[in-house]
Amino acid sequence: MDHKHPATPSPGAASPASGHAPQDRTPRDGKLRPVESGVGRNADGSPRTPLLDRIRSPFDLRNLSAEQLAQVADELRAETLDTVSTTGGHLGASLGVVELTVALHAVFDTPRDRLIWDVGHQTYPHKILTERRHRIRTLRQPGGLSGFTRRSESEYDPFGAAHSSTSISAGLGMATAHDLLAHEDPALKDRHVIAVIGDGAISAGMAYEAMNNAGSSGARLIVVLNDNEMSIAPPVGAMSNYLSRLMSSRSFLNLRDFAGRVAKRLPQPIERTAKRADEFARGILTGGTLFEELGFYYVGPIDGHNMDHLLPILRNLREADEKGPVLLHVITQKGRGYAPAEASGDKFHAVSKFNVVTGEQTKAPPGPPTYTSVFAQGLLAAAEADPRIVAITAAMPSGTGLEKFAKKYPDRFFDVGIAEQHAVTFAAGMATEGMKPFCAIYSTFLQRAYDQVVHDVVLQNLPVRFAIDRAGLVGADGATHAGSFDLNYLGCLPNMTIMAPSDELELLHMTATAAAYDAGPIAFRYPRGNGSGLVLPAAGEIIEIGRGRVLREAGRQSGREKGGIALLSLGTRLDDVLRAADELAARGLPPTVADARFMKPLDTALIEQLARNHAVLITVEEGAAGGFGAAVMHHLAHTGLLDNVRFRPMTLPDTLIDHNTPAAQIAEAGLSPRHVVRMALRALGVPDEAAEGLSVGRSGPTSY
Amino acid sequence: MDHKHPATPSPGAASPASGHAPQDRTPRDGKLRPVESGVGRNADGSPRTPLLDRIRSPFDLRNLSAEQLAQVADELRAETLDTVSTTGGHLGASLGVVELTVALHAVFDTPRDRLIWDVGHQTYPHKILTERRHRIRTLRQPGGLSGFTRRSESEYDPFGAAHSSTSISAGLGMATAHDLLAHEDPALKDRHVIAVIGDGAISAGMAYEAMNNAGSSGARLIVVLNDNEMSIAPPVGAMSNYLSRLMSSRSFLNLRDFAGRVAKRLPQPIERTAKRADEFARGILTGGTLFEELGFYYVGPIDGHNMDHLLPILRNLREADEKGPVLLHVITQKGRGYAPAEASGDKFHAVSKFNVVTGEQTKAPPGPPTYTSVFAQGLLAAAEADPRIVAITAAMPSGTGLEKFAKKYPDRFFDVGIAEQHAVTFAAGMATEGMKPFCAIYSTFLQRAYDQVVHDVVLQNLPVRFAIDRAGLVGADGATHAGSFDLNYLGCLPNMTIMAPSDELELLHMTATAAAYDAGPIAFRYPRGNGSGLVLPAAGEIIEIGRGRVLREAGRQSGREKGGIALLSLGTRLDDVLRAADELAARGLPPTVADARFMKPLDTALIEQLARNHAVLITVEEGAAGGFGAAVMHHLAHTGLLDNVRFRPMTLPDTLIDHNTPAAQIAEAGLSPRHVVRMALRALGVPDEAAEGLSVGRSGPTSY
Repeated sequence: MDHKHPATPSPGAASPASGHAPQDRTPRDGKLRPVESGVGRNADGSPRTPLLDRIRSPFDLRNLSAEQLAQVADELRAETLDTVSTTGGHLGASLGVVELTVALHAVFDTPRDRLIWDVGHQTYPHKILTERRHRIRTLRQPGGLSGFTRRSESEYDPFGAAHSSTSISAGLGMATAHDLLAHEDPALKDRHVIAVIGDGAISAGMAYEAMNNAGSSGARLIVVLNDNEMSIAPPVGAMSNYLSRLMSSRSFLNLRDFAGRVAKRLPQPIERTAKRADEFARGILTGGTLFEELGFYYVGPIDGHNMDHLLPILRNLREADEKGPVLLHVITQKGRGYAPAEASGDKFHAVSKFNVVTGEQTKAPPGPPTYTSVFAQGLLAAAEADPRIVAITAAMPSGTGLEKFAKKYPDRFFDVGIAEQHAVTFAAGMATEGMKPFCAIYSTFLQRAYDQVVHDVVLQNLPVRFAIDRAGLVGADGATHAGSFDLNYLGCLPNMTIMAPSDELELLHMTATAAAYDAGPIAFRYPRGNGSGLVLPAAGEIIEIGRGRVLREAGRQSGREKGGIALLSLGTRLDDVLRAADELAARGLPPTVADARFMKPLDTALIEQLARNHAVLITVEEGAAGGFGAAVMHHLAHTGLLDNVRFRPMTLPDTLIDHNTPAAQIAEAGLSPRHVVRMALRALGVPDEAAEGLSVGRSGPTSY
Repeated sequence: MDHKHPATPSPGAASPASGHAPQDRTPRDGKLRPVESGVGRNADGSPRTPLLDRIRSPFDLRNLSAEQLAQVADELRAETLDTVSTTGGHLGASLGVVELTVALHAVFDTPRDRLIWDVGHQTYPHKILTERRHRIRTLRQPGGLSGFTRRSESEYDPFGAAHSSTSISAGLGMATAHDLLAHEDPALKDRHVIAVIGDGAISAGMAYEAMNNAGSSGARLIVVLNDNEMSIAPPVGAMSNYLSRLMSSRSFLNLRDFAGRVAKRLPQPIERTAKRADEFARGILTGGTLFEELGFYYVGPIDGHNMDHLLPILRNLREADEKGPVLLHVITQKGRGYAPAEASGDKFHAVSKFNVVTGEQTKAPPGPPTYTSVFAQGLLAAAEADPRIVAITAAMPSGTGLEKFAKKYPDRFFDVGIAEQHAVTFAAGMATEGMKPFCAIYSTFLQRAYDQVVHDVVLQNLPVRFAIDRAGLVGADGATHAGSFDLNYLGCLPNMTIMAPSDELELLHMTATAAAYDAGPIAFRYPRGNGSGLVLPAAGEIIEIGRGRVLREAGRQSGREKGGIALLSLGTRLDDVLRAADELAARGLPPTVADARFMKPLDTALIEQLARNHAVLITVEEGAAGGFGAAVMHHLAHTGLLDNVRFRPMTLPDTLIDHNTPAAQIAEAGLSPRHVVRMALRALGVPDEAAEGLSVGRSGPTSY
């Protein structure tokens, strides 16, 4: 380990190699200018990275000087930029932690020391440094690196993530395990656990539970709070005293100077900056931070882009003998060092491929509106007609399409931050008073609020509307973001009404239906991606609760006692089911095709009719087994109709499906048109050979 | 409203009527003495309650003096005591909030003002005051009042509860709704929302999310923190600075005096008390509480048993014009005013019927060990053999049976407080380092950690053991505590192994199996109540993963192409299934009976054999549809075997089942032996009349 460069704390002086002194960035005119990275380019346009090229693993960082590490950081930033410009991905967060990533790996003994990145979308630089540089341009590509941390990918990823706010719990578990295992192996005593968590993620209840627990345990855990731009947005209101005290006994920085500089740097309107500076100063005078009250030893805030600040503090934390958890508060800038990212509102949070020089993102070819935007349109129309409609999101105003709603109805829009549990019960509280709340939450994140859905909404039969985006498979975000289980975990709940639109027009209808339905909880789930390009009216129509629709009716087949095949689809698999129906028709077996629309209540009349009149009944859903198909089966079994139909539920398989193209995921899941056709033919007893040579092998392009 | 008795604040002086000055309670010798309630008894032994008898509704409280209200409180305490002595229930919490209940209803305009009780188990006095006194002795009885708050029960219960920590979210939702609706109806502007939450409940992540959100909103919300005995147990470690400041500008109490008195009162070892006093004093000097940092206006702490303190402060809060949330910190004593409760370790948290004079609880007739205790025994045996086994509970050391474990292995036992989310991911973190964590959480509370089970455990395939107590129906606690959904929400998850023991010996085996299984997550669910009284070995045997067992084998039935009936049970329904089998055998239809043991992985060989060899296959589980039976159906459908068997999945119905006796709940659910027999006969085509006169109408007594 390198103790040769203890780097005298000198807050005012910029490190020449890194060029990252705060004052470089936001001059008095308030305009952002790109930071010169000092990284040249090769003939092919790729960044020149001579020092980074020598880093095979974090071990190679540990003999470098602070200046050299700053240079590694510059090259790493350039490499990250170049990578994401070809792959797309979470750019802003990664750019913000380049120096922190280098410093952590240089100071700590990774992978022996455990470095946990919360959410994990900021780990592209981490991946490059940890023996994955040769694969970094496969990021989020089929078969390539995950866009998040992943245990199976590298020993440098001790805990996988993608949902936020898990790192402190996991880290406390590891640190506690080390303490216990030290009875067996005393060498474990000096092993470190470091959890890096953002200011948004730390506002979630789970992170609080973990801090509360860590603070009362003696476990050695270092939590690095990565505070992007010292943001004090409402969702993290409670965290507004984060910066209120510097407790490091070693006094790395002159507090008042630092406070002043920090306040000046803030790219915010003057009055806000002034207010902030005042709060900051007041915090220092009165002392006491949330973290201290939670039992943490608090150090900070420090400049997360300055190696001369990061390295000595991290080394001190590494060598510190104190028991108990430490919180190191680091100020970083999202999108740091890339002018187009720094200047953009969302700091290039998640981008598609882009031109590094201009920052211009490759636009997807103009396509039909996304499901997200159609929901948003429908909700706006409903809200205009009914002042009691309110919308709630848990830190996803953009992802859920609610930005327009927020602008038009700021009083009726609630972004509660990363707090799904609160979001749902808050909505339940509103519903008791006659409001009509829409909770717009991704399928995978609604798992965070499951008990609240059960206990606060369903048991009280309150009319909370759940707009569940990203249902089913989600493409490049992979298994951690898949919405595979909502039909299962909601379908078992009494009082629940559950819809799934087969296309964007249906989504518009279901949004209108949810707005009108006031008899209890109602949910509708829809996928990521574009609709089919249908012509949409301004507002949807209210559809009948629990009533599906028949799209094609098969004639009775000769030679069979009952008609042939019925295909009953729930949700956006319908397109592919229709393709399968075409193929079956081409083989002389035109099936009946129905769109269930509702998982709950089931359209029992429709289902019974399908079972009675067909030899084979196949249900198709983009969800795990135990959901829609199981509900149909349950009903048919108890009416006796299951005894006389060959029932085949097609669902997602009981495996995790990795990030991939949507079409490839559907094929892997066994839900492509080809699979439906084969399932139907097999159920009819057609030999497998005859089922070969199908013309409908691939999933259609309009499903996502 | 009564403004005639603004009751001069006089901290040192006891209110003669209530006799509740703190110094009455814990004299210097540290021994607790019963507080004289001043309530006499009628000839029949019932408490004499002349003033309470005049209270028809909270309106009648609003013209009484402070002295009279204190007398109402005394009578209310006596009435509560007398009630619970005959019904059993949550006594300690209710006794602790008697004065607070009276004061809140006297000062606020309930039910117009919304009074939300967190958890709701402390609301027996509230129920007595709010037009339910005539039914109070039906508490928790079949058809009687719920043991928690419930919207359908009374307009004075604006939000139902039973799980903790929901009240602030719900209250914020209501307050926000009032603000929005005030556009329509300006009269709503002065409507109050009061959430009463305990110091344990406020430590949950959800409460923090709600406070974080409330603090950054301008909503008028009063949170009353009901701090029982100022407990500073590890689970609420983060909350140790609760009492650090009195912010009320009106200075109701002399701070330092109060601090000193409070410190003296603490029934804790001297050094702890001293430390506490020091912390307390420091808090006052440095200022700044967690609540203030969360944006609350903090008032307190005040004595929650003294009307002269409660009433003026509540009146002030009622009249205050400030926008934004207020936190009133109230110190109460759990079990207050009843010597046996005050003196007991758990303050009579939840009791069976008892003798009011002696405090002696009616013991249940000596029965077989509970499932909970058998799990605990099995875990202890496993932990003795394997030092890597650790146990985690979320504030339920007693309920989950882990008390003995905690005593024997304090280093390997973790009570993380009401923090299920953290509990699960903390366990996942331990598992990554080679520990073998058992998470013991009730089925209904594991819903709180669903996303953590999915994202942190299942996706990473980490060997976390879930010991899921209170699975299925739970008797007197009712629908809010029922563990009806775990087979659904866990069954859909890849990598999961799920077991359900059919009796306590099987539970012992499964505990041993879970200890030995290290290939991924494994869960086992077992019910509330007693086992069957089987002779138990010291430790269980490891059973084969995914292998069920056949208990009875039916001979081939004459006159049928396949044998008759197969009954496949999962979990403790097996006893009743065997009763049903007896009845069928008596009718000449002896069925095959199998115990699946595993929901996941399924014993596919067993299931296929049952389907092949029988005309009827019935699955029985104490869980919602979509769970075990659905999984069996799914497998059979895809092997084609479903086409040739009459399959009938018996599950809990799609309704909420109210608190009742366990046997009545099973009958209501349609899972009694009689129902199984009828299902079998109907599937065989036996007319309903022939199925009448069954001799197995009632569920057996050994299931709970």
